[in-house]
Amino acid sequence: MNEESFPVPKGFSAAGIYCGLKKAKKDLALVVSEVPAVAAGVYTQNKVCAAPVVVTKEHCAQPVGVRAIIANSGNANACTGESGMENARRMARAVAEQLHCREQEVLVASTGVIGQQLQINKIETAAPALAGELSSAHFRDAAEAIMTTDTFPKMSARQFMLGGSTVAILGFTKGSGMIAPNMIGDNGAKHATMLGFICTDARIGKTALQAMLSDATERSFNSISVDGDTSTNDMVLLLANGAAGNESLESDSKDYAIFSDNLESVCVELAQMIVRDGEGATKFIEIHVRGAATDESANIAARSIGGSSLVKTAIFGMDANWGRIAAAVGYSGIDFIPADMEISLCGLSVLGKNYHSEFDEAEMKRLLSEKDITIDVNLNGGTGEAKFWTCDLSLDYVRINGSYRS
Amino acid sequence: MNEESFPVPKGFSAAGIYCGLKKAKKDLALVVSEVPAVAAGVYTQNKVCAAPVVVTKEHCAQPVGVRAIIANSGNANACTGESGMENARRMARAVAEQLHCREQEVLVASTGVIGQQLQINKIETAAPALAGELSSAHFRDAAEAIMTTDTFPKMSARQFMLGGSTVAILGFTKGSGMIAPNMIGDNGAKHATMLGFICTDARIGKTALQAMLSDATERSFNSISVDGDTSTNDMVLLLANGAAGNESLESDSKDYAIFSDNLESVCVELAQMIVRDGEGATKFIEIHVRGAATDESANIAARSIGGSSLVKTAIFGMDANWGRIAAAVGYSGIDFIPADMEISLCGLSVLGKNYHSEFDEAEMKRLLSEKDITIDVNLNGGTGEAKFWTCDLSLDYVRINGSYRS
Repeated sequence: MNEESFPVPKGFSAAGIYCGLKKAKKDLALVVSEVPAVAAGVYTQNKVCAAPVVVTKEHCAQPVGVRAIIANSGNANACTGESGMENARRMARAVAEQLHCREQEVLVASTGVIGQQLQINKIETAAPALAGELSSAHFRDAAEAIMTTDTFPKMSARQFMLGGSTVAILGFTKGSGMIAPNMIGDNGAKHATMLGFICTDARIGKTALQAMLSDATERSFNSISVDGDTSTNDMVLLLANGAAGNESLESDSKDYAIFSDNLESVCVELAQMIVRDGEGATKFIEIHVRGAATDESANIAARSIGGSSLVKTAIFGMDANWGRIAAAVGYSGIDFIPADMEISLCGLSVLGKNYHSEFDEAEMKRLLSEKDITIDVNLNGGTGEAKFWTCDLSLDYVRINGSYRS
Repeated sequence: MNEESFPVPKGFSAAGIYCGLKKAKKDLALVVSEVPAVAAGVYTQNKVCAAPVVVTKEHCAQPVGVRAIIANSGNANACTGESGMENARRMARAVAEQLHCREQEVLVASTGVIGQQLQINKIETAAPALAGELSSAHFRDAAEAIMTTDTFPKMSARQFMLGGSTVAILGFTKGSGMIAPNMIGDNGAKHATMLGFICTDARIGKTALQAMLSDATERSFNSISVDGDTSTNDMVLLLANGAAGNESLESDSKDYAIFSDNLESVCVELAQMIVRDGEGATKFIEIHVRGAATDESANIAARSIGGSSLVKTAIFGMDANWGRIAAAVGYSGIDFIPADMEISLCGLSVLGKNYHSEFDEAEMKRLLSEKDITIDVNLNGGTGEAKFWTCDLSLDYVRINGSYRS
């Protein structure tokens, strides 16, 4: 991935440096908008919610615009009580001092180990150097600086016309384990340890921006899982600074779909990268449930298949054990007629109606040896459909997570 | 485990033989009551429900008593359509012919691979030999015959006085993978690939028997998980033949608690054996949540901890990663005050109120090297409490399930 090829939204710059929270790798990221930007966010619904999530929600709710996002890896600043809250505020303040803006104009995020106090002095000491590195060419550094068990930085961008203006969307994300995003906007949307930061130079009203982010999140970050554990720190933030000069996009604008489709496309690409980089993953699995009574039922079924340890170990073992898929739909709680269910694996039918199952085992084995696996379920009971993405459950997942702290 | 030491309820006999469904081990079990017994059952709520579950529910609902339970391993007779239903009925008929009773007086159960037709002719051919092996000394053979990936047969029994009569309860069970029981009685109780068969010579009314089984199941089989996958075949059956001669126990009998406590004790012992024998398990984990607003909230939190892959891999790695436990309570969906939460691992406090965490890492490491692990969570927000049992998520779990069919 070469960042030269990414269109960078006008008026945004980024930096990523090493400040000493991790052993030797970049651990501090900054994204800055030249002018105050409209901000939207979706956040973990975990009750044990990290201090930076609390502070960022507060700052996002202010009527003022947002100038920057600072994020560290190596420490989640979660389960850290009052000291943690104070440290999250000090992170924002350190950036505000560099940008000569108010603390409330800076959003903060953290990822890493839970339950240890953040070494805030290291961040404060590094703040001038971090600001000194700001450049429109340094988004990749920022993407690297938020990595934890990730094996590669994750970026996605789009450039397109919006009401006569050229606009760009650029996002980056991190996440590999403790991934089962369930994020909700403060306006009431939903389902990750994952962080995602997206910026655009489009001019967009706050209500429309939040609605677009919440919708896109449902069909991207909230439709993936690695291990089913929803983190204390998940958040996705979207900043729109208006530098593209388009007429402000509102909920009833005719170009609404143009932007929201591009945003969703960026979010889906980022979300899929998280799954591809899932801890220990050897397979990327796309689950597509169709023929459900409603889209919501299809989502519940797809999520149940994607959460099944037995399905995930079977795919790791390249075993066409469709009975485990059928069982996962069965215990998902949705209504359907089991005998009407059809299941295909990698495009090959393994279960037809009335439990008819006959397939070429050798061909199936060959298909399952590929890295990308598809599971298609047709319930033949309606028009509801949903997609969900996950990875296999491998020996390395257990190795990685059996010794995370040590 | 020596069956000579188990009290066998009067009027019951059992058998377990090899009939050719598995490679070389016992695969066909039979339990028989000399006289028609009152029967109660709890069954999987999986919509993809195996044929034997459908047939057994039908037979249990008949006003006639039950004479026998036949169960096979090696094939689940699930996702087998109309042929599967016919084969389940033929299983019952094969036993009925041997006992000269009606097909409806025989309950059936199956466990094993999903989606393959049962070789019913092998069971029919073996029926006379199976009946020929019936003996009050052969319960262990029956327990062996229902094993799949189990590494040991699982039995539990109690003998006690009930209204002047000596009564006995003897149960056996199987289960190792696809374990997340969620069973419900037809009367409306709830949350397994697990089978459990319990017999008693107490005389008990049908309503009271079902209520006692449903209640005991909630606090035993429905409070365990190995992998979170709820099977298509789970069932627990309880037969009471009255041979002890006690006055019939009803819902308002003063001795109700004597029997129900003993029944629950048998169910808890059997359920714990399943977890101890969980696929790949190296640790037995007891989770005890206290101080919740209600027992139900405590159960939801305990279940969330027990279902967390990150908690289970941490215990496998002997890592005191209490942050993962706190996170699992946080995303369980219950209401609580995070800063009030206290967590102990193996009796050693790892998290105090206000996120105070300080413990002896060396002592913790020693405690976590034991086979039996306890996780105690006090939410300090009420009197609700619940226990849940699970095992760790090990490298062997992945190895076993990555190659089950092959």
